[in-house]
Amino acid sequence: VLRNVKDVHATAPERGGLRLRSVGLSGIRKPLSIRRPDRVHELAATIRVGVDLPADRKGSDLSRNAEILAEVIDRTVQEPAESLESACSSIARELLSRHPSATQATVDAEATYFLRRGVSADRRSFEDFLLRAEARSFRASDGSLRLERSVGAEVVGMTTCPCAMETTRTLLEAQYPMLSDPGLKGMPMITHNQRNRTSLLFAFGEHGEVEADSIIAAIEAAQSSPTFAILKREDEGRVVTDAHRRPKFVEDVLRDLLASLPVRFPEIPDDVRIRASTVSEESIHKYNVEASHETTMGDLRRSHPS
Amino acid sequence: VLRNVKDVHATAPERGGLRLRSVGLSGIRKPLSIRRPDRVHELAATIRVGVDLPADRKGSDLSRNAEILAEVIDRTVQEPAESLESACSSIARELLSRHPSATQATVDAEATYFLRRGVSADRRSFEDFLLRAEARSFRASDGSLRLERSVGAEVVGMTTCPCAMETTRTLLEAQYPMLSDPGLKGMPMITHNQRNRTSLLFAFGEHGEVEADSIIAAIEAAQSSPTFAILKREDEGRVVTDAHRRPKFVEDVLRDLLASLPVRFPEIPDDVRIRASTVSEESIHKYNVEASHETTMGDLRRSHPS
Amino acid sequence: VLRNVKDVHATAPERGGLRLRSVGLSGIRKPLSIRRPDRVHELAATIRVGVDLPADRKGSDLSRNAEILAEVIDRTVQEPAESLESACSSIARELLSRHPSATQATVDAEATYFLRRGVSADRRSFEDFLLRAEARSFRASDGSLRLERSVGAEVVGMTTCPCAMETTRTLLEAQYPMLSDPGLKGMPMITHNQRNRTSLLFAFGEHGEVEADSIIAAIEAAQSSPTFAILKREDEGRVVTDAHRRPKFVEDVLRDLLASLPVRFPEIPDDVRIRASTVSEESIHKYNVEASHETTMGDLRRSHPS
Amino acid sequence: VLRNVKDVHATAPERGGLRLRSVGLSGIRKPLSIRRPDRVHELAATIRVGVDLPADRKGSDLSRNAEILAEVIDRTVQEPAESLESACSSIARELLSRHPSATQATVDAEATYFLRRGVSADRRSFEDFLLRAEARSFRASDGSLRLERSVGAEVVGMTTCPCAMETTRTLLEAQYPMLSDPGLKGMPMITHNQRNRTSLLFAFGEHGEVEADSIIAAIEAAQSSPTFAILKREDEGRVVTDAHRRPKFVEDVLRDLLASLPVRFPEIPDDVRIRASTVSEESIHKYNVEASHETTMGDLRRSHPS
Repeated sequence: VLRNVKDVHATAPERGGLRLRSVGLSGIRKPLSIRRPDRVHELAATIRVGVDLPADRKGSDLSRNAEILAEVIDRTVQEPAESLESACSSIARELLSRHPSATQATVDAEATYFLRRGVSADRRSFEDFLLRAEARSFRASDGSLRLERSVGAEVVGMTTCPCAMETTRTLLEAQYPMLSDPGLKGMPMITHNQRNRTSLLFAFGEHGEVEADSIIAAIEAAQSSPTFAILKREDEGRVVTDAHRRPKFVEDVLRDLLASLPVRFPEIPDDVRIRASTVSEESIHKYNVEASHETTMGDLRRSHPS
Repeated sequence: VLRNVKDVHATAPERGGLRLRSVGLSGIRKPLSIRRPDRVHELAATIRVGVDLPADRKGSDLSRNAEILAEVIDRTVQEPAESLESACSSIARELLSRHPSATQATVDAEATYFLRRGVSADRRSFEDFLLRAEARSFRASDGSLRLERSVGAEVVGMTTCPCAMETTRTLLEAQYPMLSDPGLKGMPMITHNQRNRTSLLFAFGEHGEVEADSIIAAIEAAQSSPTFAILKREDEGRVVTDAHRRPKFVEDVLRDLLASLPVRFPEIPDDVRIRASTVSEESIHKYNVEASHETTMGDLRRSHPS
Repeated sequence: VLRNVKDVHATAPERGGLRLRSVGLSGIRKPLSIRRPDRVHELAATIRVGVDLPADRKGSDLSRNAEILAEVIDRTVQEPAESLESACSSIARELLSRHPSATQATVDAEATYFLRRGVSADRRSFEDFLLRAEARSFRASDGSLRLERSVGAEVVGMTTCPCAMETTRTLLEAQYPMLSDPGLKGMPMITHNQRNRTSLLFAFGEHGEVEADSIIAAIEAAQSSPTFAILKREDEGRVVTDAHRRPKFVEDVLRDLLASLPVRFPEIPDDVRIRASTVSEESIHKYNVEASHETTMGDLRRSHPS
Repeated sequence: VLRNVKDVHATAPERGGLRLRSVGLSGIRKPLSIRRPDRVHELAATIRVGVDLPADRKGSDLSRNAEILAEVIDRTVQEPAESLESACSSIARELLSRHPSATQATVDAEATYFLRRGVSADRRSFEDFLLRAEARSFRASDGSLRLERSVGAEVVGMTTCPCAMETTRTLLEAQYPMLSDPGLKGMPMITHNQRNRTSLLFAFGEHGEVEADSIIAAIEAAQSSPTFAILKREDEGRVVTDAHRRPKFVEDVLRDLLASLPVRFPEIPDDVRIRASTVSEESIHKYNVEASHETTMGDLRRSHPS
């Protein structure tokens, strides 16, 4: 029936002259299975894909994007992928292959990810984290492809404010003079504490790898304390006490996280770019407090020589 | 041109026999001006309206709803309404008037609302709250109308956990024996504290009024502490200390709020229904803790005789 | 260390006299594996649980809730549950067992759910749906338990407006008189069409079952058309044409869905309660149009005798 | 009391060496009054502010940010600002003034904005749009300040797909041969159409202005049709017909919008940067289709010589 239908996408646009940076799909939800050390995880991933569009073409053929996603992702339910990032990379490569007039493709994905965690072995249960991955593919004028990949995670933990802790000590000393006794020196004081959301993303070129679980561990170590689903009374007391022994501004969370990367990831090359951000949903304000930074592994190594 | 177009809404539905409970519009955004003691507030309200639909009619004439909203709400920009609730009531009445085959109409609205607040007179700035209002109109078989109206608010404040405070005291006493000294008895101890979101709604019949600002004040008084935009160092210390002197579970916030209503609102009749709920975005967990209750002013008076 | 710590939850509340309706946790994210005809699905479920709290007890022991979730849900990763609903039922039962002073427990859960779908066998790919389940357990005065369970789904599809189709025909006939020719009678005309989101929930007592996939199929059949991830040009044309041949108001979607239930689910008892709602994200308005209804299978059978 | 309290923010960080790019507040809600041609609008703005933090300082003094917001924004309720953007600029300047060790400050704000619109003069009512503004201030080594400002808007309208329109014509011609008659040539055919969300942002240096209402008008003109709150039956038919006479891919919306800017804004200098993006919430898919571009006014003028 449809032999004579015009391919509208391939016609010239009425307003020519503009190569558009990105045309694609967003809000795509797919089940994506990845093989992890512990087991196969089935993620409910949210994905965005796009390619650039040459000036002489009215439309990008978007049904190809949906087909690529079906081929690359749907099949992981039978044959798990290595990681969220490896699936993004396959899609980014395939996008350039099936959009011959495009010169770059981008793929972003995120998914809730569960790991068993606990204050002790008998308190373990699944905690939720957010995995993030991006892949960008570029076609050079000689037809060769280059790939950039990002891998990251977002972790919810806890921060306790170091500033209010100093102030409350002074305020309470006025009422309880015994507080100034050397025997109580260093005892953690009351302060405000809150839910903190910290994310870290590594942007690689062709080479380099990083394990999502290690990113999550690095973030948890930089917060005042990780948080847990199961806390019996004594556990709760210990988490609170530990968090108050490591009071941190968002500035501290970010700096401690960044400073830890050269030690935790000695194998990651200097040219790998790092994006980190952290948000504390303040208990004493209706608004949030946040900090963000961008740098490279090389710069971090120079700032924090071991 | 359109004289001969069929009124599709007025035709009989293919699948008859069902009077639908509610057909209407949602996600409508409108500027709504209300006259308050301090000044005229222009709210950016989000509104939902609906009426029931008789079994013999295919469609509700929804463009009438949009016209009513334009007439009632749009004109408040020139001539402010008394309250969000009075605007909802006018709409609910008008819905039944212009949907002659409907027997009940519902209107829900919510809007961010700003009040100047501060720990002290020179620290005042605008804090954001959420106003809520509902109106339901009913047409009796004799054609008379009855109106039910709800007025409420949601307030973000702070809770500090009373349980962890006991545990940390015990844990810290093991390390700092001096803590058990009677001179430190009653000193607030470290605990987890977090953002708390509490809402309260009064459902009136034809009669009765309540001031939104009083609802907000009642909620703030029931939390461990209100929260503030501007807190210089000493203010912050005082807010933290005050909050730790009033540690509260969500259960306590809810009960203290409900118990305060007979005293705060002596003029509200016994048959007024009360809905209250509270959510603490726990700092030590990735999930929230919440409590909710429904009752009447009469039951509250019987439970908490003054 | 903690032998002497007071159990704060078990103390009497300062403001007694109120049995609170519900105290619990919300926003809990867990991986939940269910065994389906096609394969084991791992869902990323969002869960809320709560129990009532007697008047003489200050706090509900919420760490028990987290333990129950860990025991019931976490283990499904090894040993898949039968359904989202069966997991909710197990949790609701266990909540009453470990909260001996509670008389009712509620569990709500929802999760994205993927099914392979397509306009034809070679266009199949994963489409996303939303599963919903609820369980309520009640303890009678003789100690016996009663359970109520709800099972439902939300499906995104498409609606085309039947009213605008009549109007555009009349408007275009003025310009194209040939349109009135009998040879074009019944040809679908242009109208506005949009994303529609419809949900259906069955509330059972102790007995009765319904398959989530059948709920999804019932909803898809009631919309103007299902929607698909992969549509090549001809497929797209057919989906658009089919949808324009079944123009539907939200009122029609709701009535057609409800009318289909007695035929599709002959085995579901008369006392099962039905909640259905539908929202069209209008393309010609910035707001949504919606309809909702509540009824029982018995009432539907009486309204639509077969 | 607090004379002896340590200023924790001013101490050296434990992990030195890193100047953080941005530390600040987000999710701040404030009432902001702006004077517009038609009337004073009170916006409920959502604001984010941040400054960089030198390597030798532990914390940014965030209470200063809250004070600046209170001073600049809260007072607009008495004395309206010129625009959302002018308020952002004042804040950005003040941030550098009160954070003497910072070298750059950023302010982002957005707010719902209402304009009276209608298909005709007697159908006018308030339609909601989104205003966006950003300001960046930079301190040079000689102490001088430089300011960059962005002004933009997001508009919800409608798109109709040009590709499906070709396909459905061919499909329907098979059933209605009369459709091929030259007398029906050019008649708009059925296709899928949907809610479209398009945004446009101009980034100025020190000089240049643009009226938010003109940005909104430019976006509305680039969509297949604007959308309206009030549409009586004939209006609805006309909006649908007009939209089907201007079928557009997201690619077309973006290109038409960008191509219109040199004509609509002849006074805007060549070095002004332009960011534009558009999302169609597809009626035939569960996912969205989107396009985005970044360019300068100068490049647009070269691509589209008048």
